[in-house]
Amino acid sequence: MHHYPSQLLEKAVEEIAQLPGIGKRTALRLALHLLKRPASQTEFFAQTLTRLVKEIRRCQTCYSLCDEEQCEICKNPHRNSKIICIVEDIRDVMAIENTGQYQGVYHVLGGKISPMEGIGPDQLHIQPLIDRAHKAREIIFALSSTIEGDTTIFYLYKMLKELPIKLSTIARGIGVGDELEYADEVTLGRSINHRIPYEESL
Amino acid sequence: MHHYPSQLLEKAVEEIAQLPGIGKRTALRLALHLLKRPASQTEFFAQTLTRLVKEIRRCQTCYSLCDEEQCEICKNPHRNSKIICIVEDIRDVMAIENTGQYQGVYHVLGGKISPMEGIGPDQLHIQPLIDRAHKAREIIFALSSTIEGDTTIFYLYKMLKELPIKLSTIARGIGVGDELEYADEVTLGRSINHRIPYEESL
Repeated sequence: MHHYPSQLLEKAVEEIAQLPGIGKRTALRLALHLLKRPASQTEFFAQTLTRLVKEIRRCQTCYSLCDEEQCEICKNPHRNSKIICIVEDIRDVMAIENTGQYQGVYHVLGGKISPMEGIGPDQLHIQPLIDRAHKAREIIFALSSTIEGDTTIFYLYKMLKELPIKLSTIARGIGVGDELEYADEVTLGRSINHRIPYEESL
Repeated sequence: MHHYPSQLLEKAVEEIAQLPGIGKRTALRLALHLLKRPASQTEFFAQTLTRLVKEIRRCQTCYSLCDEEQCEICKNPHRNSKIICIVEDIRDVMAIENTGQYQGVYHVLGGKISPMEGIGPDQLHIQPLIDRAHKAREIIFALSSTIEGDTTIFYLYKMLKELPIKLSTIARGIGVGDELEYADEVTLGRSINHRIPYEESL
């Protein structure tokens, strides 16, 4: 795409196309959309994004995103701060919160150990987790079961295994409502090996 | 998606999700991406969008977007201002410019007549086109051949047909490099009816 009729437009398209999953063509469509609506709406949009990146904070305890020093979950006296669920990213916190099944607190690592992408333990919020772990009763690993996820869990396991706390991991198995015949072999195998008493599933 | 850990994040996601083709999930992914890169980069991004909508202008002649009063094409003395190509939108100008085959000027309508979407002739830049047409030698209709495109062309045709100018439309036919067997019947039919002398195709 050459021949932009306006340098302002070209610069905007280049900026928008830097976002992940957005190519030049989509960026141009989005820029023209911004031009079709009232300018005040896009000014507000730009202000909202600027406020987001300048004012948002990380919870001093669990490293989730929040608007104050501590997040709503860590501040809540009804949450059990002795149970810490380790997740990669804030989206996992949101997903678990949406289930309404968890009463403990979280620890957001900010990523997974990935030598391929040059992410080592030092880039993640691991040291503060070790500090918190001394006061915990249980730590739940809730990372995705990829090579990076398993590597990260194993690294943390080695750091935490000497502490007198329970280390657990979320159950892997066939999704509720899923057909057995479409499940992959590893998942199906695990769900048989880790079968639970029928009464517990009710 | 409920339970946003931050109101700033929730508002940003809502704003991003108002863009066409972007749902809440993608908006959250984009917002978290903005938070991962340096804040200064997102501030610059926001400034670029604000400048775009506040400073960009429409060419006083052809209604294309530009940074000054008149666009580069209308200003260019080497372009033939007697030949006006009518397009729906600035993307069509860019596409035709990319071919390097056209030496005339443009007129951007800003849309197509569409009673279904409540777009009548008054919302398009049609009156200035009629004014320009009096000084033109040829007008080329380069609108997509949908119901709305054909309606718009027919409306313009009725307005312009009494003027002593040539009215033409871009050729429809089988794309260069396309297989005949996969072409739709209407296109293939037209390309036979509007066949051209072989020498002209060289």
